[in-house]
Amino acid sequence: MEQVNVTLTETIKVLLDDKKFSTLRDILVTMKPYDIAAIFENLQDEKMPILFRILPKELAAETFVEMDDETQEFLIHGFSDSELKEVVDELFVDDAVDLIEEMPANVVKRILRQADKDMRKQINELLKYPEDSAGSIMTTEFIVLRPDMTAEMAIKRIRRTGVDKETIYTCYVTDANNKLIGITTVKDLLLAEDDELVKSIMEENVISVTTLADQEQVAQMFSNYNFLALPVVDNENRLVGIVTIDDAIDVIQEEATEDIEKMAAVLPSDKPYMKTSIFGLYKKRVPWLLILMLSATFTSAIISSFEAVLANVLILSSFIPMITGSGGNAGSQSSVSVIRALSLGEIQFKSIFLVLWKEFRVSILCGITLAAANFVKLLLFDLHGQENAFMIALVISLTLVGTIIMAKLVGSSLPLLASKVGFDPAVMANPLISTVCDSLSLLIYFGVAKLILHL
Amino acid sequence: MEQVNVTLTETIKVLLDDKKFSTLRDILVTMKPYDIAAIFENLQDEKMPILFRILPKELAAETFVEMDDETQEFLIHGFSDSELKEVVDELFVDDAVDLIEEMPANVVKRILRQADKDMRKQINELLKYPEDSAGSIMTTEFIVLRPDMTAEMAIKRIRRTGVDKETIYTCYVTDANNKLIGITTVKDLLLAEDDELVKSIMEENVISVTTLADQEQVAQMFSNYNFLALPVVDNENRLVGIVTIDDAIDVIQEEATEDIEKMAAVLPSDKPYMKTSIFGLYKKRVPWLLILMLSATFTSAIISSFEAVLANVLILSSFIPMITGSGGNAGSQSSVSVIRALSLGEIQFKSIFLVLWKEFRVSILCGITLAAANFVKLLLFDLHGQENAFMIALVISLTLVGTIIMAKLVGSSLPLLASKVGFDPAVMANPLISTVCDSLSLLIYFGVAKLILHL
Repeated sequence: MEQVNVTLTETIKVLLDDKKFSTLRDILVTMKPYDIAAIFENLQDEKMPILFRILPKELAAETFVEMDDETQEFLIHGFSDSELKEVVDELFVDDAVDLIEEMPANVVKRILRQADKDMRKQINELLKYPEDSAGSIMTTEFIVLRPDMTAEMAIKRIRRTGVDKETIYTCYVTDANNKLIGITTVKDLLLAEDDELVKSIMEENVISVTTLADQEQVAQMFSNYNFLALPVVDNENRLVGIVTIDDAIDVIQEEATEDIEKMAAVLPSDKPYMKTSIFGLYKKRVPWLLILMLSATFTSAIISSFEAVLANVLILSSFIPMITGSGGNAGSQSSVSVIRALSLGEIQFKSIFLVLWKEFRVSILCGITLAAANFVKLLLFDLHGQENAFMIALVISLTLVGTIIMAKLVGSSLPLLASKVGFDPAVMANPLISTVCDSLSLLIYFGVAKLILHL
Repeated sequence: MEQVNVTLTETIKVLLDDKKFSTLRDILVTMKPYDIAAIFENLQDEKMPILFRILPKELAAETFVEMDDETQEFLIHGFSDSELKEVVDELFVDDAVDLIEEMPANVVKRILRQADKDMRKQINELLKYPEDSAGSIMTTEFIVLRPDMTAEMAIKRIRRTGVDKETIYTCYVTDANNKLIGITTVKDLLLAEDDELVKSIMEENVISVTTLADQEQVAQMFSNYNFLALPVVDNENRLVGIVTIDDAIDVIQEEATEDIEKMAAVLPSDKPYMKTSIFGLYKKRVPWLLILMLSATFTSAIISSFEAVLANVLILSSFIPMITGSGGNAGSQSSVSVIRALSLGEIQFKSIFLVLWKEFRVSILCGITLAAANFVKLLLFDLHGQENAFMIALVISLTLVGTIIMAKLVGSSLPLLASKVGFDPAVMANPLISTVCDSLSLLIYFGVAKLILHL
């Protein structure tokens, strides 16, 4: 869709300059909120309020939700209180909460002042829940049915109360104490006989989460069970909210990005790349770079402690990057496979021995292949004409086998151990593992060299 | 959920051995297909058919869909034709297609023979579409309405035809030629007046994709627009199917896994880690290991060509891993940020100069920080007492600045260039970039060394 916006943005800028407001409105109402929001982000600040006022009320609110926080904040500053109220009234509670979490205190005050009493209460409820918890991404607007309603009554109720609900398709059946006793869907209600009772239609084995459940786990449940919405209950199993699938998808994307960033030794960010400031990126990247650079002290120490060996056979030093590199790559292959399997819930810590045994066999295959290829390459090219080329080639090739086996075992076990002690496995990925593998592979290298070359 | 299954599996195994079938049935009907499938995968083969026959027909089919292909194939081999027919009849067309794509030819024949004529036709239609296309993940079962129906008629029609549809909540309005002219939702229909006409309720600006659209782009649209389903049309804008959100989520997960694997130089796999054979893992990992090892020839060549320099100041060799390592990490940080932004559609190739300028400024900050920290560290520890320690520390620190800048520019530009020429940016990630960075950083290293140490 991006491509579309880019060209459209130009047209819209022109129409704005020419004050062709009715034309603009005609165009905008044919567009999706996400695309309109993208256009706002490409607009000069002073144009934004003008364009925003052209939007019909509901579309305006839907578009507002899709904007990044800079744009939202800028618009709010330009809003009159009544304009702000119009937007806030149209927001779903969970979107209002997302907004408030991004805004500075003074803006938050203004927003809450415009929200009607009931909404303000709900917002404050939701703000209590910890970040990344089910409570923090749930909405408190959902359809509640009673077990002894008929399908017909249920449908009537949905038609009466559904208009301001984020989703009406999954309905929640609660008893007098507001405890969740079942769920049913509009589909089942529509396909049932008019006089069938909700309690006979509803699914009683409800899967629900508590308000404190981790959002990643919640999102995973959506993809496992194909839910459209998931009920959130308190400790007494009272229904307090629902997580809708659109929010679950956002979480899935977020968590994937977070894992990927951690694997590349970047501190997880909550902002899109292009929206992150230079200093913001710096702060996310430099810590790991420093840690990894300092930890490279070990490799330096190891190498200088073997200076004697190197001085004897200087050529050995020229294969250090190849050996550490191969080790690092082999290690990150294993760690990433394990990390992903962990975050998709395919394996847990208890499978560690299965995993190690698997990785061990794979590493032998990989190690021998690499060593063989490398041995030939060394004798034919790199070491051609070099004195005792054969022995040196042997050293390097044996080192490769050892390094690959070591790297794959380290790479697969570290993330599992991390998950066991409650660390995030993704942090164990790639760079950290390569630093460990670098040191170990050098020890293997020089060990083998001393042994075979009798140094 | 996994944890739950594990313990439950034991109970179920016992009950199976004791032939407590009615108890088993009582337990199973309270469970979700995904969890039942997980239990099957932990069962000995000979037990599977027994447990499967205990399941009620519909639940059996739903569970069957959630199983991995080994389990499915094994069960099918045990099925009588009538048992197979029972399962196939319960499948949604798109699930049937997924199944067939995984099964060997002889099994496919059996399945198709059991499918009724109409379904076989639909299946064969869907099988024509290329893998990873919208056509290959869509279902052909959806609710079609006509523009001049009333809301009441529409609801009646949904109640009559909805039962065997995967989703009824988004309804598609087509004209006499089956061209897609609008969409509406059960919500809108329920909230509308009984006698309102569909054409006045429906949304006319429909976003649809063609059968050949890339599934990744399709999935991205779900997360951008919060769709529950997305219509798929042919070149004449005739409605041929819909993609439902559950399939979109699976695609999002798949694509994230694929990106992560590629970033770690693993060929993308379609199977969960634990289900992949040793040789399967080997085949996915060894190609890149080989390529990267061989490409390390450059680094070796560079180092040996500077043997003179090293011979003079042997200590320089001990910092090679630290320098190449820092370069590799800095490069992969940038590449991963860019790759993720690309696959989330946040940036395109045309922003390359914005990106480079951004990365350049970030890299200067990072480079100077690392160099400073390293300079102090070198003088206080590594080079303590070493002759002309100051000059050597200077060489290494200046090299770091140059390396970080180089690495971040390479790391951010390669993925963008790849996307431009139609390669997968993810493949450009980490390992490939580190190999490039390794060579370049060594050139910087020895260049600076020769310059400052007058070698």
